[in-house]
Amino acid sequence: MTNKFYMPTRVIIGDDCITKNSELFIFLGKKALIVTGAQSAKRNGSEKDVKTALESVGINYLVFDKVMSNPTIACVYEGATLAKENGVDFIIAIGGGSPMDAGKAIALLAAQDIEEENLFSGNYEKKVLPMAFVPTTAGTGSEVTQYSILTNDKAQTKTSIASDLLFPTVTFLDAKYTEQLAVTTTINTAIDALSHAVEGMLSVRASNVSDALAVASIRMIMNCVPDMLQALLAGSEVVFNLKQREQLLQASLMAGMVIAQTGTTVVHAMGYSLTYFKNIDHGRANGLLLGEYLKLVENVQPDLAGSILAAMNFSEADQFGELMNKLLGDKEEISSEEIKRYSKIAIQTKNIANSVVKPTEEELRTMYALSFVK
Amino acid sequence: MTNKFYMPTRVIIGDDCITKNSELFIFLGKKALIVTGAQSAKRNGSEKDVKTALESVGINYLVFDKVMSNPTIACVYEGATLAKENGVDFIIAIGGGSPMDAGKAIALLAAQDIEEENLFSGNYEKKVLPMAFVPTTAGTGSEVTQYSILTNDKAQTKTSIASDLLFPTVTFLDAKYTEQLAVTTTINTAIDALSHAVEGMLSVRASNVSDALAVASIRMIMNCVPDMLQALLAGSEVVFNLKQREQLLQASLMAGMVIAQTGTTVVHAMGYSLTYFKNIDHGRANGLLLGEYLKLVENVQPDLAGSILAAMNFSEADQFGELMNKLLGDKEEISSEEIKRYSKIAIQTKNIANSVVKPTEEELRTMYALSFVK
Repeated sequence: MTNKFYMPTRVIIGDDCITKNSELFIFLGKKALIVTGAQSAKRNGSEKDVKTALESVGINYLVFDKVMSNPTIACVYEGATLAKENGVDFIIAIGGGSPMDAGKAIALLAAQDIEEENLFSGNYEKKVLPMAFVPTTAGTGSEVTQYSILTNDKAQTKTSIASDLLFPTVTFLDAKYTEQLAVTTTINTAIDALSHAVEGMLSVRASNVSDALAVASIRMIMNCVPDMLQALLAGSEVVFNLKQREQLLQASLMAGMVIAQTGTTVVHAMGYSLTYFKNIDHGRANGLLLGEYLKLVENVQPDLAGSILAAMNFSEADQFGELMNKLLGDKEEISSEEIKRYSKIAIQTKNIANSVVKPTEEELRTMYALSFVK
Repeated sequence: MTNKFYMPTRVIIGDDCITKNSELFIFLGKKALIVTGAQSAKRNGSEKDVKTALESVGINYLVFDKVMSNPTIACVYEGATLAKENGVDFIIAIGGGSPMDAGKAIALLAAQDIEEENLFSGNYEKKVLPMAFVPTTAGTGSEVTQYSILTNDKAQTKTSIASDLLFPTVTFLDAKYTEQLAVTTTINTAIDALSHAVEGMLSVRASNVSDALAVASIRMIMNCVPDMLQALLAGSEVVFNLKQREQLLQASLMAGMVIAQTGTTVVHAMGYSLTYFKNIDHGRANGLLLGEYLKLVENVQPDLAGSILAAMNFSEADQFGELMNKLLGDKEEISSEEIKRYSKIAIQTKNIANSVVKPTEEELRTMYALSFVK
């Protein structure tokens, strides 16, 4: 089969990398729309650094800080309208997955007219506004992918726009913006990144290149796990040092580079319903499901599971399941009605077809059930 | 410090990937110049596949098959003139490092006028012809780098043009074009790739991303070493199966992605004189020197050397040196005059400044001498 690698985003990593590289904004445009959420970018200093950089090179900007968790279609159309009305010619997204995913859709919709019914079609003109991204959590990988994942109420799930147009032009990774993240957020986002790396290795599109990045990402995240467990025990808000934050942010970057090549698999297919219907955090949803799916893979393709577990220094999937149980704490309830409904939705997703080990609908139901056993 | 990752080339990997993806050429232009050497692209079928793909989508082309080993400045100006005279709007390079390096310079020189004295300046307009590359050896990595390395008679060495403009637009990796390579070529090019991966880890610009790719590349090449040794003993021309050829080609790709980020270090700085003055093959030159440099690194930064040696399943640099001795066979002679001269040239290169462990000129002389001990 044909394998591919494509990831054209320019990645800049390091302390104060935004203000040190402000001249890069000049190549993007003359007027920026800063897309972000209501609070965190203000609190962690990232928005201020972006503004400082823009002002230092004389670029105008306005701020659209209305992006909510799991952004809606209405939200991205609102942002695009604002961009068009104000003659914005490039987008800067700051935040976790939500502002970045919204930023991509806004960059697309501000450059061309796309009716809502065609938004997920993938059939677009080759026009998009240039984008600069600043991730402030370490999990989504959106800063180096071509995906914009939006809440799709018609399909009652999260749906992704996937287009090479959506790769950000440049991405700035400065771990200090993640330093104040709460322990739970840190763990959930790290598990999201871990899930990307693991699912990348379980994808029919896995390659030597994506596997190399995935294995390194898994190792880097696992190196931070002992401190995550300690943080949970201590109940402390801030326990990770900057070096660990850097490791997690770069592991998330590499896992993002992986899924840009491989897409995601069964775990994301199953997790979207948990987020859409039960409001379970996206990373947490993946973590709840990943152990059971790895056990299924271990039964069907032991070598494949083994290569993933080896990167974790585990010998069997059960050990990984136990670790997730420790990291995730008390589990939510799930009813048999919910399990049936979510399995029916998941089995139809392209993420299942993208998996080396493709579960039946019955196996999906079993995995949902076992994932919520306390 | 600031780290970066940028590699915008679209990589397509697989059997018949050129003819299966011929529509990709349509995005590059309407008339191609095929840049290649005199023979190998005709012999291994790659030129025929490119022509078939171009004809299937109605793209005109002409062939410039005059690229010699270690291409000269005159050669790339000749190719650029041909491109301009014939209204060519994109470049296809087929071959080992020489046609690819020449292809990049031709793509640049056909798009803008650059005087010879400014060719290595890096100060160019942002104009270059789009490029499609087809590597037919597994070593150079040029298919995914921004470097064009040319023989520079004025500086009496090989000098590189380095510019983000020079990343190929698309690269096709089909291992069947490497199937008929002679054992010596296979080994020398594999050592070149190995040297890229190792030097990437020894660069001041190494990052988690480049290290992940480098470690995987080293492992993949080392997995093929037993068959290389057996092939040398058997004296057979063709011994590697297609699966091994794929591993070597992808390892070379990944090592190319590494040096696109990190540049090369001491070994390349020293090796260029061996190629320029003594006509020693580039990969072989690196192999002759790499063992002694790893020993120096082992003394100064044992952890750094250890991480590289671990990827090779070695515990000390001596073991690596012994392996190189076996793979490279009888060594050339080197005089103390040559050693002095080459050390003087090498110490001035930017590759030395790019190395974590920076040898003195005296240490360079010692390494040259020890590298040629029989």
